[in-house]
Amino acid sequence: MDEFQLIEKYFNCNEIHRRDVKLGIGDDAAIVKVPQGFELVTTVDTLVEGIHFLKNTPAEYLAQRILTVNLSDIASMGAKPCWMTLAVTLPKVQTKWLNQFSKVFFKLAKQHQIQLIGGNVSRGPLTFTLNAFGLVPKGTALKRSGAKNRDLVCVTGALGDSALALAGLTKKIKLPRSSQAKLRAQYFAPQAQIAAGLILRHYANACIDISDGLIQDLQHLLDASGKGAKLYLSKIPLSRFIRQILDKQQALGYALNGGEDYQLLFTVAAKKIAALEKKLKFYVIGQIDQTKRLKLVDENEEIIQLNKKGYKHF
Amino acid sequence: MDEFQLIEKYFNCNEIHRRDVKLGIGDDAAIVKVPQGFELVTTVDTLVEGIHFLKNTPAEYLAQRILTVNLSDIASMGAKPCWMTLAVTLPKVQTKWLNQFSKVFFKLAKQHQIQLIGGNVSRGPLTFTLNAFGLVPKGTALKRSGAKNRDLVCVTGALGDSALALAGLTKKIKLPRSSQAKLRAQYFAPQAQIAAGLILRHYANACIDISDGLIQDLQHLLDASGKGAKLYLSKIPLSRFIRQILDKQQALGYALNGGEDYQLLFTVAAKKIAALEKKLKFYVIGQIDQTKRLKLVDENEEIIQLNKKGYKHF
Repeated sequence: MDEFQLIEKYFNCNEIHRRDVKLGIGDDAAIVKVPQGFELVTTVDTLVEGIHFLKNTPAEYLAQRILTVNLSDIASMGAKPCWMTLAVTLPKVQTKWLNQFSKVFFKLAKQHQIQLIGGNVSRGPLTFTLNAFGLVPKGTALKRSGAKNRDLVCVTGALGDSALALAGLTKKIKLPRSSQAKLRAQYFAPQAQIAAGLILRHYANACIDISDGLIQDLQHLLDASGKGAKLYLSKIPLSRFIRQILDKQQALGYALNGGEDYQLLFTVAAKKIAALEKKLKFYVIGQIDQTKRLKLVDENEEIIQLNKKGYKHF
Repeated sequence: MDEFQLIEKYFNCNEIHRRDVKLGIGDDAAIVKVPQGFELVTTVDTLVEGIHFLKNTPAEYLAQRILTVNLSDIASMGAKPCWMTLAVTLPKVQTKWLNQFSKVFFKLAKQHQIQLIGGNVSRGPLTFTLNAFGLVPKGTALKRSGAKNRDLVCVTGALGDSALALAGLTKKIKLPRSSQAKLRAQYFAPQAQIAAGLILRHYANACIDISDGLIQDLQHLLDASGKGAKLYLSKIPLSRFIRQILDKQQALGYALNGGEDYQLLFTVAAKKIAALEKKLKFYVIGQIDQTKRLKLVDENEEIIQLNKKGYKHF
């Protein structure tokens, strides 16, 4: 099977046809229309076997994961995902693997009505690079740089589970059998917070997704906004699983530095909180200030020292 | 140096600022504007060390090559390149290599005023995936599928040099010293025919770039158009180098099947040829017909049999 046949068989899904795609897969390039009054949001992310995922990770999980890491970035801009291109390098052509990957990939794409408009399949070490596109009404995209003094710092869900699951998978920690399946799913098949991003566009001043860990990503948001913040450790949401397995100090370590949670971290004016609570579940975990420093504080407002290292790519 | 510092130092070029880029590198995603009346063209291509380029290929050549393979696809649609995202995986961080790559990459980007709006740098086997974007006035993009009966089949330049250079580099053939430098440049540093594509948009009915070899790419165009063609072997342009080094039959083999020439192959109505000749240098090499078959013919219109295999990715 050559590249053209491979793409035709596994990557040309006939079930997703958007009207804004004038020409999809099959020519030298795709042609798409951005509707008037909208801006285009785009991002690229790569997953490499042995670096970003463990060897022998099932194809279904990889399909979910490469979509989530990119769609999460689109979600954090408050944009609606619309198209994508995918470049895959494979050590060899394995029909079963390709079938499994393609099935889950397009199932998720269909859920969100995202059309694959370009692709590249070639031989090489197992690597996925996805470029995702989203649309957003002109001037309404959320950025990291919009945080305002006194904004509340919020997060859309519990943190640390993904890092805990990875620690279990790599045998750094022994997980009780009862929570293994749930935690693994959290690590392998995370969800991009697309619906939350679309709501937050109307409320939040700044937004980022948590991929590198709460502290590191909050620091990115603060740097971009030229602000500081207090982070209330006692208010950081922890899942039932992580609280059962770890003591509080350990659990916080995973929540603060773990990464790959793919929850949205955002800031919002205090006066909008009540209205936002009617639309979205979220947790207030801190407050923006003018200090340009990030302070971790306990219930008594005392400053805590913790290892601040998030995930580093090199 | 972590990923963020790497991107800031080597991939965030401050010299290219397009007005249609509202937010470039540095947030979760970029925000761009497609001007009213225009459509967006996009394509992705990957180069993997040991598969698409030889080990120890100098960084400057890789920068040129990853740009060309993608911009050539944008050119073949008759679009003007505007933005791109680049995902690079590197076995290790080498300052000298990164400096060389980045210098040539942005020099070429600047020539065409193409802004890098997203990137990913991570550890892994040496691989480049570039997603290129182009703009084209609504409804004017060139496609593979537009060839009409009796159109003349044309090509923008000499074919086969790139494949000949590769044969020299891999010691399959011994190249005379006098032509080595020129041929290597042809292989390593090909040019995308961007200016030609912009002209052809006003004349051609169908277009494709020659990446997989003349026969294979012409076949793609014919399949997409539901047509056949006669290809006049005696009219295929061959460079001075290839004619000096090989006999005519061998030279034709490289020109027909070699690939990676990155010339544009297009079809145009006979009545437009004279006007097009005033704007662009090109060669008429065949004619579209209704047969649905591609025939290679000699000066006496007799059909020739040749090995039809172009480059296959697997």
